[in-house]
Amino acid sequence: MAGTDKSLDLTFLPSPAVILCEPQLGENVGTTARAMANFGLWDLRLVNPRDGWPNERAIAAASRADHVIERVRVFATVEEAIADLSLVFATTARRRDIQKPVFGPEQASQNLIGHIGTGGGAGLLFGRERWGLYNEEISLADAIVTLPVEAAFASLNIAQAVLIMAYEWRRQSDLGSTLPFSGGLDPTAPREELMGLFGHLEETLDRTGFFKTEDKRPTMVHNIRAIFARAGLSSQEIRTLRGMISSIDRKHERQRPGRSTAADEETSE
Amino acid sequence: MAGTDKSLDLTFLPSPAVILCEPQLGENVGTTARAMANFGLWDLRLVNPRDGWPNERAIAAASRADHVIERVRVFATVEEAIADLSLVFATTARRRDIQKPVFGPEQASQNLIGHIGTGGGAGLLFGRERWGLYNEEISLADAIVTLPVEAAFASLNIAQAVLIMAYEWRRQSDLGSTLPFSGGLDPTAPREELMGLFGHLEETLDRTGFFKTEDKRPTMVHNIRAIFARAGLSSQEIRTLRGMISSIDRKHERQRPGRSTAADEETSE
Repeated sequence: MAGTDKSLDLTFLPSPAVILCEPQLGENVGTTARAMANFGLWDLRLVNPRDGWPNERAIAAASRADHVIERVRVFATVEEAIADLSLVFATTARRRDIQKPVFGPEQASQNLIGHIGTGGGAGLLFGRERWGLYNEEISLADAIVTLPVEAAFASLNIAQAVLIMAYEWRRQSDLGSTLPFSGGLDPTAPREELMGLFGHLEETLDRTGFFKTEDKRPTMVHNIRAIFARAGLSSQEIRTLRGMISSIDRKHERQRPGRSTAADEETSE
Repeated sequence: MAGTDKSLDLTFLPSPAVILCEPQLGENVGTTARAMANFGLWDLRLVNPRDGWPNERAIAAASRADHVIERVRVFATVEEAIADLSLVFATTARRRDIQKPVFGPEQASQNLIGHIGTGGGAGLLFGRERWGLYNEEISLADAIVTLPVEAAFASLNIAQAVLIMAYEWRRQSDLGSTLPFSGGLDPTAPREELMGLFGHLEETLDRTGFFKTEDKRPTMVHNIRAIFARAGLSSQEIRTLRGMISSIDRKHERQRPGRSTAADEETSE
């Protein structure tokens, strides 16, 4: 989905750090940076990245998330990477035999938002591509976060797990209530204009013999009005519809002298 | 995040179809299939895929989401791909000059869940990698869906956009309340055992002269009890703590004859 607006400034609001423990592929560091940037995270920390840092493949895969890539910090150990944080969650897809609370992304994000809102530093630990986090690393965290995946197909790549957490963070913070655009619809017309359309339409239908029997007319009118009432028509759309009615009505009028019976049938179908 | 449990059966519950319009790279079809599988979607439809179908790169990128890949259907036009659906949302990252409601993922998923719950078919349209959906395609949809991305960095790859929508679908449906595992914590001990710990600890502290002055004792006791009360201790953990207290206490007892003053100071620190 293209759509980046390069005229807009990036914001660096307080938000959770993302800590990747011994990432193996530079490409995954890059796609992680991109996923973070999509939802406004920017503090990426690497513990002992296998392919070193900086890494060309990471930069290529980041798709111009330069503001994240430029701020990457590298640490030798998890302890150093999280030293300044006071709330740390460890992500894992497997049950571990560790006495920690287990949160889903929603509850984890609520906790992160609350903690960061009071000025605390917070971070999310992600493990190696092949085998995740070691128990020693998880033991440093306050709680475990896991995603509500299909148990029979639970394997997510790191950038995807980061994307979900970044999305939940943003969704539940103030930012998340703001879509990049909205209101594709023009305002709905005042009821007076809708009633004008109804009057115009029903007068035309009456005159052209649409309502075969008077006793069925009220029900038919209600059903026809329902179609247009639920469409949320704008003033412009009402004008367009009235123009359409008039146009068809004039055709009917024009044709009446020559072949009135056929025209009557056509209009009442 | 590894963690797929291959012993579990896959489920094919009614869920939204994902329709990719003219995907250019087979790899993106594969990563889309994987993202769908993570959150339990399985109906993937392709409109006129550039590299044809089946596609080796798609299969490789799907990371064994075979149950999705095997069910892929290919159509010549969007109209044919959505012919059986009665609710269709078009995803786009850019504002379009089309009279359609614009939903975020949450509201879109609520609508999808409601619609599918009443037996209707529903689908999500995704556009080409480079320029998204054409307006003619969007005009076939009931509404537009866009993600609450950072406007200054809004570019998501298709699989990531699909992942967010699949996650929201699952999060808000019944399935989403079930994490693949939970309850990392043993049950909290009955209060009686916690009180036993407090009694044991405070008796030991009293005996070893920890509380220097009697007037400060109640406040100190409250503060110490608070530490252990908020830890949510299990029965096993309480036994461990009491063992630790006894062990230190015995060391203290053993040392008392030889160097009682130094031991007293050490214990009361």
